[in-house]
Amino acid sequence: MNIAIVGASGYGGEILVKLLAAHPKVTLKAVTSRSKAGQAVSAVIPALRGVLDKMLFENSDPAELAAREDIDVAFLSLPHGAAAEYARHLVDAGKKVIDLSADFRISDPAVYEEFYGAAHPDVELLGRAQYVMPELSADGWQSKDLFACPGCYPTSILVPLLPLMRAGIISKEHIVANSFSGTSGAGKQSKEAFSFCEVNESAKAYGVPKHRHLSEMEEQLSLAAGEEVVIQFNPHLAPMNRGIATTITVPSQGSTIEQLYAEWEKAYSDKPFICILPPSERPDTKYVVGTNRVDVSAVKDERTGNFVITSAEDNLVKGAGGQAIQILNIWQGWDETTGLI
Amino acid sequence: MNIAIVGASGYGGEILVKLLAAHPKVTLKAVTSRSKAGQAVSAVIPALRGVLDKMLFENSDPAELAAREDIDVAFLSLPHGAAAEYARHLVDAGKKVIDLSADFRISDPAVYEEFYGAAHPDVELLGRAQYVMPELSADGWQSKDLFACPGCYPTSILVPLLPLMRAGIISKEHIVANSFSGTSGAGKQSKEAFSFCEVNESAKAYGVPKHRHLSEMEEQLSLAAGEEVVIQFNPHLAPMNRGIATTITVPSQGSTIEQLYAEWEKAYSDKPFICILPPSERPDTKYVVGTNRVDVSAVKDERTGNFVITSAEDNLVKGAGGQAIQILNIWQGWDETTGLI
Amino acid sequence: MNIAIVGASGYGGEILVKLLAAHPKVTLKAVTSRSKAGQAVSAVIPALRGVLDKMLFENSDPAELAAREDIDVAFLSLPHGAAAEYARHLVDAGKKVIDLSADFRISDPAVYEEFYGAAHPDVELLGRAQYVMPELSADGWQSKDLFACPGCYPTSILVPLLPLMRAGIISKEHIVANSFSGTSGAGKQSKEAFSFCEVNESAKAYGVPKHRHLSEMEEQLSLAAGEEVVIQFNPHLAPMNRGIATTITVPSQGSTIEQLYAEWEKAYSDKPFICILPPSERPDTKYVVGTNRVDVSAVKDERTGNFVITSAEDNLVKGAGGQAIQILNIWQGWDETTGLI
Amino acid sequence: MNIAIVGASGYGGEILVKLLAAHPKVTLKAVTSRSKAGQAVSAVIPALRGVLDKMLFENSDPAELAAREDIDVAFLSLPHGAAAEYARHLVDAGKKVIDLSADFRISDPAVYEEFYGAAHPDVELLGRAQYVMPELSADGWQSKDLFACPGCYPTSILVPLLPLMRAGIISKEHIVANSFSGTSGAGKQSKEAFSFCEVNESAKAYGVPKHRHLSEMEEQLSLAAGEEVVIQFNPHLAPMNRGIATTITVPSQGSTIEQLYAEWEKAYSDKPFICILPPSERPDTKYVVGTNRVDVSAVKDERTGNFVITSAEDNLVKGAGGQAIQILNIWQGWDETTGLI
Repeated sequence: MNIAIVGASGYGGEILVKLLAAHPKVTLKAVTSRSKAGQAVSAVIPALRGVLDKMLFENSDPAELAAREDIDVAFLSLPHGAAAEYARHLVDAGKKVIDLSADFRISDPAVYEEFYGAAHPDVELLGRAQYVMPELSADGWQSKDLFACPGCYPTSILVPLLPLMRAGIISKEHIVANSFSGTSGAGKQSKEAFSFCEVNESAKAYGVPKHRHLSEMEEQLSLAAGEEVVIQFNPHLAPMNRGIATTITVPSQGSTIEQLYAEWEKAYSDKPFICILPPSERPDTKYVVGTNRVDVSAVKDERTGNFVITSAEDNLVKGAGGQAIQILNIWQGWDETTGLI
Repeated sequence: MNIAIVGASGYGGEILVKLLAAHPKVTLKAVTSRSKAGQAVSAVIPALRGVLDKMLFENSDPAELAAREDIDVAFLSLPHGAAAEYARHLVDAGKKVIDLSADFRISDPAVYEEFYGAAHPDVELLGRAQYVMPELSADGWQSKDLFACPGCYPTSILVPLLPLMRAGIISKEHIVANSFSGTSGAGKQSKEAFSFCEVNESAKAYGVPKHRHLSEMEEQLSLAAGEEVVIQFNPHLAPMNRGIATTITVPSQGSTIEQLYAEWEKAYSDKPFICILPPSERPDTKYVVGTNRVDVSAVKDERTGNFVITSAEDNLVKGAGGQAIQILNIWQGWDETTGLI
Repeated sequence: MNIAIVGASGYGGEILVKLLAAHPKVTLKAVTSRSKAGQAVSAVIPALRGVLDKMLFENSDPAELAAREDIDVAFLSLPHGAAAEYARHLVDAGKKVIDLSADFRISDPAVYEEFYGAAHPDVELLGRAQYVMPELSADGWQSKDLFACPGCYPTSILVPLLPLMRAGIISKEHIVANSFSGTSGAGKQSKEAFSFCEVNESAKAYGVPKHRHLSEMEEQLSLAAGEEVVIQFNPHLAPMNRGIATTITVPSQGSTIEQLYAEWEKAYSDKPFICILPPSERPDTKYVVGTNRVDVSAVKDERTGNFVITSAEDNLVKGAGGQAIQILNIWQGWDETTGLI
Repeated sequence: MNIAIVGASGYGGEILVKLLAAHPKVTLKAVTSRSKAGQAVSAVIPALRGVLDKMLFENSDPAELAAREDIDVAFLSLPHGAAAEYARHLVDAGKKVIDLSADFRISDPAVYEEFYGAAHPDVELLGRAQYVMPELSADGWQSKDLFACPGCYPTSILVPLLPLMRAGIISKEHIVANSFSGTSGAGKQSKEAFSFCEVNESAKAYGVPKHRHLSEMEEQLSLAAGEEVVIQFNPHLAPMNRGIATTITVPSQGSTIEQLYAEWEKAYSDKPFICILPPSERPDTKYVVGTNRVDVSAVKDERTGNFVITSAEDNLVKGAGGQAIQILNIWQGWDETTGLI
């Protein structure tokens, strides 16, 4: 299977390049970046010195890329808005597309416009796209033309919450999720605010009260609940490179911690990338960075009646490129863990 | 005014030593530490080389210390349980005590026992103690014998919440506070779990669902509300030395963001250490570390009806030694900011 | 004494503002910055919220500033090249100037041009300027019009080396200095290379083999040696905010470690900001950050015959603004430590 | 090929477990640790949750381990002194041993005793051991019973220096190496000095002037030079988890930078794990962490006549477990990069 990675010069693209270069079932045929075109991959991603010294970044436009016969599948690691144009050409040319942007995550174009501040760039294609949570999406998604990968924050929140919401054992109201993200989540930055001296020894909230990822989380939670669910999501920037630690408070409505764990077991006991920790342990970003895992645990506070649910993931792997490859693996019928740990 | 600092070898004690050594109105007469007795202060706290080279750590027991005529006020920077014994001797000898431990923060000994796992060490003295939030405590506390300083997390949560609770403009239910603390909050540590390689590049929740500081927060919130208030408090460890960033979600019950800011202005407009930021800005621990400030801001989420309130403080200054000195200053009728920034 | 700080929006300027705002003998009259003009000081330097909320950054040009009667002394925290123009106007108007740039550190304009890549901007004024190392410069410098402050790296290297070179107890050849600097040494940055994710978890050399600060170090060492001295200086970037740790290897030429320490004692025993540690201890940047100290120690390696000399300082305090204030203090005949720790 | 890892609970052991668990040519049969015996590997190394949940740490003594028929090769990740006893039993039982300790790195027992403070634990076995630098050791070492892996610092210094010393194009005197190591180099620590708050925002030299690794470096350099070589080695602790950045100053004796690069090309042009950067680039630990590479570059300072040589490696991979696996690969005739990047 021949692969192109479109827009591979950011941190998310870098992970895709690293993982796909080592993936035993695929061949990397093209790596594109407008700003890095003509440079060797290993010059832009020095961690790959000696591995991808000969491959050059290309500057293919959507039509050129779509016309290439040596590409079967394209991963899009582009900003929202830009992804849709590539996706259109590629899908029209019969390629499969795995999109890491937000362009095809939300089924309702009006919600997209509300949260992303512009009309959806390709509503027709949106109808042919499928949002895929590898552990949770109902079978059958594999037949679609375009797979939308979940965002980093949503993955850390939906993995623990969705099975509980589907089972109806938690409240649909008063859900509060606080996430602490490594700074790579902001992408490669050349702003003073993201310079080392400003981020190091700093912790702060940002993006409240209406972070874009809410749109995606609330759509999935609402689908699971069978009614509209609105949550509070408070993201924070942490002085570390990678990882998201999420803590969710949700009223238990009388459900027990045993019921919660039973639902998780039902959903995830055979899923290699979801690790259910006992109530006495808390997930730590340190232990998931570099892996495609989400670690989850929960406790019940009998005083407040809330569940306190904690999760940890690598925002660049399970929250981006790793999950995209997991989708490829499942779609192809390969072992889900191929090329991943 | 002659001062003793009891138990000064930890990070909290170190700040007290630094600040009081430079305080223009006091003279440091004794600095004690069982484990460091006989060593120069500057050997244990190398940041003070050249400043406190001649002063030695002492190993005075409570009775010895209480008998010293050259001490007027003692700051106790001791573990809970240990503080009460020193406090008893000192108060009985007519000294004033400013206690940074948890021993006199909670008025109900049963709650103390529930959260700290042991009977309160001195119930009689507890009755003569006063929990002091310098900006919020009703006048008159100055006449007490012993002043209990608020904990680090409670300061970051009570400063923004108490005026709102008193004004009755927020819900008494579904309050969720998430705090992200620098590692000095755990004290000087010689456990592998707190070693550099384990904490660096790691973010995680801990101490859920029933951290000890809840006892203190809930007592103050309940007093303010006129009824029992129970909250969810989720502390996290951040890979940085100092600072606490707190994010509180609380239903607004129809109150407006203007009402919230009006209450803050009423409470804090003349308070030098509380900085009210506009709704568009988020407090950042970077900007308060080294100061005695709490920076606060808030937004209202019209979708959920919640206020999202954020605060930042230095856990070692406003959350510990700085606030203790602020209490000294006010008690003595000195300018509140003497020796502090 | 009325003070202006010119170019105060960088990290160096920020320290000057903080220290001078709290200095008991001076009044801050003007703080300038072209890019921040019109903004409150505390908006640009949020650590000073509540302290300098009312003072605004100005955009005074050199002539305007020189014409102001309410300014006695100006600190220049400007890039090299830009400092000289301000200095000229201010000196001509009879103000004293304390310059933190490189413009007046090197007495030979040809060397300036070699290392800074442009002709010296004001050779006449250079002749009226004095490079001041507060602990080492011969008395009499106070009569000059303009005082040039040493660079951050040179301070960490010259403080330990100069007394040894003057005493003739070390080699003039094969001197190798390696320094590890916190990232604030690069100034406020908006380049990707200085973004958090690029600097965090990274250590690397840069600027070899001919860093600009060599010009200044070699001039001072040559003056001390009475002949030309050329050294190897290898700077490195460390993933921390502040501090420089320097390690110098120099052949002992048969001198003993006792001789070395005797020279240091002679030079520094009465100097409050130079702390001589015993051979068994190594300076640590952690213990000097926030202070105006340089900590030094040395060992002799009997196998190689070399001294290995180590030092630590805060690049922003002793390496910049603190040392500038120390120069002000000495010049004015105030206690050298006024407003400094 | 069946593998045991002895002493796998430290950071070095952890890397070995991770790499060998994924190595396509070997089967992990035993993982031992006295302190962790009975615990699941993934409980001690949570990064391997889901990967090694079923394998338990064992507490096999040397004789037991040597008697096991299901083990062909043992990697020893033990403290010096302890390794020799295991090595003896294993070699006597016909197993091959790849030792990561210092016990078999130095051929002269007297030097071992001088640097490690105890008599060599097994002089006879030392005679049957081979110190292997995979890119530099003369062919034929594969026939030995026991392979000693180079230390982390020596790898970063010998890789760039040895080919130059062999070629006789650098001085044998006045060699100065400064290294800046991540804190994992100190191993898993439960001392206050290695706690997060003490290491974070700190840079300092340590272990001067006679670090143990000097013994190994000087033996190899002396062999290459054909005469005794003594160098200055100044190690430093950096506030990061992994990586060593080394900067070496060595007189060029009139050699040109072209000659230096020519020797490196001769030695390394076909070596996948040595990356020669041009004189304009400096190696960065960030780009080698997680890989088995050493990146090197050099400049010549015409003013001093010195070469300034810089290198970067991952202390836990190329400086420990990765290089050990590289030795296994070469010994077995497998592709050198099997299981490594």
